[in-house]
Amino acid sequence: MTAAYPELETRFKRIALVREASSVLEWDRDALMPSGGSAARTEQLATLQVLAHQMVTDPAIGDLIARAGQEQSRLDLWQNANLRRMTRQWRHATCLPADLVEALSRATSECEMRWRSARAASDFKGLLPLLQRVLDLVRESASVKAAAFGLSPYDALLDESEPDTRSADIAALFDSLAAFLPGFIDAALERQARAPAATPPAGPFPVAKQEALARRLMQAVGFDFAHGRLDTSAHPFCGGVPDDVRLTTRWEESDFMPGLMGVLHETGHAMYERGLPQAWRHQPVGHALSTSLHESQSLLVEMQACRSREFIAFLAPLAAQTFGGEGPAWSADNLYRIYTKVERSFIRVDADEATYPAHVILRYRLESAMIAGDLKLADLPGAWAEEMQRLLGITPPDDRRGCLQDIHWPLGAWAYFPSYTLGAMTAAQFIDAARRAVPGIPDALARGDFAPLMGWLRANVHSQGSSLSARELITAATGKPLDPEIYKRHLTQRYLT
Amino acid sequence: MTAAYPELETRFKRIALVREASSVLEWDRDALMPSGGSAARTEQLATLQVLAHQMVTDPAIGDLIARAGQEQSRLDLWQNANLRRMTRQWRHATCLPADLVEALSRATSECEMRWRSARAASDFKGLLPLLQRVLDLVRESASVKAAAFGLSPYDALLDESEPDTRSADIAALFDSLAAFLPGFIDAALERQARAPAATPPAGPFPVAKQEALARRLMQAVGFDFAHGRLDTSAHPFCGGVPDDVRLTTRWEESDFMPGLMGVLHETGHAMYERGLPQAWRHQPVGHALSTSLHESQSLLVEMQACRSREFIAFLAPLAAQTFGGEGPAWSADNLYRIYTKVERSFIRVDADEATYPAHVILRYRLESAMIAGDLKLADLPGAWAEEMQRLLGITPPDDRRGCLQDIHWPLGAWAYFPSYTLGAMTAAQFIDAARRAVPGIPDALARGDFAPLMGWLRANVHSQGSSLSARELITAATGKPLDPEIYKRHLTQRYLT
Repeated sequence: MTAAYPELETRFKRIALVREASSVLEWDRDALMPSGGSAARTEQLATLQVLAHQMVTDPAIGDLIARAGQEQSRLDLWQNANLRRMTRQWRHATCLPADLVEALSRATSECEMRWRSARAASDFKGLLPLLQRVLDLVRESASVKAAAFGLSPYDALLDESEPDTRSADIAALFDSLAAFLPGFIDAALERQARAPAATPPAGPFPVAKQEALARRLMQAVGFDFAHGRLDTSAHPFCGGVPDDVRLTTRWEESDFMPGLMGVLHETGHAMYERGLPQAWRHQPVGHALSTSLHESQSLLVEMQACRSREFIAFLAPLAAQTFGGEGPAWSADNLYRIYTKVERSFIRVDADEATYPAHVILRYRLESAMIAGDLKLADLPGAWAEEMQRLLGITPPDDRRGCLQDIHWPLGAWAYFPSYTLGAMTAAQFIDAARRAVPGIPDALARGDFAPLMGWLRANVHSQGSSLSARELITAATGKPLDPEIYKRHLTQRYLT
Repeated sequence: MTAAYPELETRFKRIALVREASSVLEWDRDALMPSGGSAARTEQLATLQVLAHQMVTDPAIGDLIARAGQEQSRLDLWQNANLRRMTRQWRHATCLPADLVEALSRATSECEMRWRSARAASDFKGLLPLLQRVLDLVRESASVKAAAFGLSPYDALLDESEPDTRSADIAALFDSLAAFLPGFIDAALERQARAPAATPPAGPFPVAKQEALARRLMQAVGFDFAHGRLDTSAHPFCGGVPDDVRLTTRWEESDFMPGLMGVLHETGHAMYERGLPQAWRHQPVGHALSTSLHESQSLLVEMQACRSREFIAFLAPLAAQTFGGEGPAWSADNLYRIYTKVERSFIRVDADEATYPAHVILRYRLESAMIAGDLKLADLPGAWAEEMQRLLGITPPDDRRGCLQDIHWPLGAWAYFPSYTLGAMTAAQFIDAARRAVPGIPDALARGDFAPLMGWLRANVHSQGSSLSARELITAATGKPLDPEIYKRHLTQRYLT
């Protein structure tokens, strides 16, 4: 009998390649497809998805996994980790009955459509029946997966984006942050009020110049245009495949500052993809570890490195030169004040670094209660207002700026929000460790030189692929598991000192 | 037992969608992929190709086709035509043994690689062993297919690009043309020598202006940018899918004239794709009929419509305005002389309309002899020189400008060349019939209005998909099968009167 593990590698490589094809087609759809191509593209992508699903759920895969389990002693560490990842994919793909998957798919696509108008009209009641249907089906899936994986329902959902991370860990981290944030935000706002007001540089800023500056900074970070592209789309994202990363952004003539940070954020994602282990391309263990690890890499580049005083001292004269700007609005101090401005606000995607975690903790608390059955959907708007008042000290004037603002729940994506703040905490912990290991990092950033930082990330994070759990990887790279004190220290240093 | 035909539609739709995905990925590769994405893309495309092949050769397809044959009386004309097309695809995919397919694939990729250097060095002897291997395997495939289809070996190969067309028909058409061409070319050159010399408009011609003019003309032809794009690539082509056609071209700063006709040529291909029957998208009967039919549509737009005196009278002032040109070089007469210039030359892809058929007939004669075993590969250079002298009155100074110039044979593509000239003849016959049915066509072209011509093509050609054979379609649209006299009349009118 031939060995089962190599046959699994062959099969999962083929599955990965079909998904890579989808990823490029999705990029094309969002970056440059003419509108009339939409119907055909939807059908092409659905077909590839069905094929990939059939390939993962092929009964032969279950047999091969069982047989490979007996070969484990002959497999090395990476092969074993790869086998674990394959097993996880196969379990997630096979454990739900087909009619439940189909019902969920239909319910979420109806709910998403309705959500677009409900949000515009701030009409929570109108969305309620469809959202209830989605929540019911998500809870049903969660129970099925919980039984299959031996986890709580929320943990079973969480396992899709955050393998091996548990709600109990998140609750402890978020409770610690929640105790810190209200006082911290008060103090940051108070300090900001005493500082000179920030003056936005005067535009307009021609798109071609913004793009040229963005490309120069991408190259400074380490992006290789022989292995990727920068294009525009309505919602910026990082797509494509590791050796051909497709970034998108959008430009505003009136303000170059958000677009630039948007590109640097996506460049962080891209650097992670590019740095994944070359020897394991197209294998599960060669893919990104988790959503929060991916987010840690974008936030590390954007929030930690590029909004640092050091980097902004490098950026300010470059920006002034690019746009022909002069005067105090172009000083590094002023740009730094703009890039670290704190404001209590209702909308998560517009929130700044200091208040963002409050938005996430709020959602995490409400969504765990919904999955546990402790919060009825009808009571969501009230619970949202209460929790927001508690964490951020403001109350949304309507549901459009409250519980209707995000697409996640209408799409059935419960247990996804925590990844944003786990990512931010992980980023803080990585750069803290990197600076201790490579003391020259801040000085290098002040010269626009990312090589020392990227060198550390390549070795300690990117090249590890999915060979470890997030907890193992963070511990190996930084000496301990995720520690909320490091993140708090970062926020304190940036906003209170 | 459920009906077999609907199940075949479901399966062939899925196969078509996988191929559509490949088509978009191929366009991306050639139009905008960064070089570093090449290895991954090759693997993605190979995987999709294997999947599509597995789906066509799935043993269930053979059973379904057999059962659907018994349902034929309940199927309408289009369904029956669709079933014939499915059967043809399935037969071509299944009749060759897998080891022969693999050997051919390996031999052609080695031969293609070697051809690139052999052509540059004009080294036919160096290529000979590899090309011999390809020819041997092509002949072997041809025999297997010949037995399976009950055709001669050459006809069995021809059936892939030209379903239901036979070598005997082509030989008759080409013999008639071959008797006409030498005298015609002499006469055209003589007449040209007596006319005023053509003066190329002076450049440079900024690419942005060329592109703006090309887009305007594409829209005049009827191209809808909500259903397609124009980009650049090393070799112009028409890719994508019917509802999202991706054209490419290349621009030369020093001469806008070839690039413009290149775009119009590809626009002809695009209009055919766009006009294929909407109700049969993703089904074999909804696809293009044959290579020569596709080529007839590009040549109809480029050669027949856009190089006509009428259209050039419309184009000349527009081009002068676009590039700020003045003087006699920008007159319609002068541009027409340039666009209809005749010259004896060695290279097929650079040949003009009048001499092009000679290049094709030469290749057709030699390649049928090679498949029949009547021409040894070692004797190819000599036979090439002899035939070229006979048809065109010139002898290539080396094999680089002779039998090494084309990639087709090194790629194993025997029985493909005839499509070019069949397409040119078909185009002449279509526009001849269209002008008789819609007498306003020439006047409309003189106003840059393609609607009357496109209306006729939509109704008589594009919307027919693959529901008829080429002979049936041409007969239905024009009153008779392909008639070389119509093509000769076109050449005579354009070049001798």
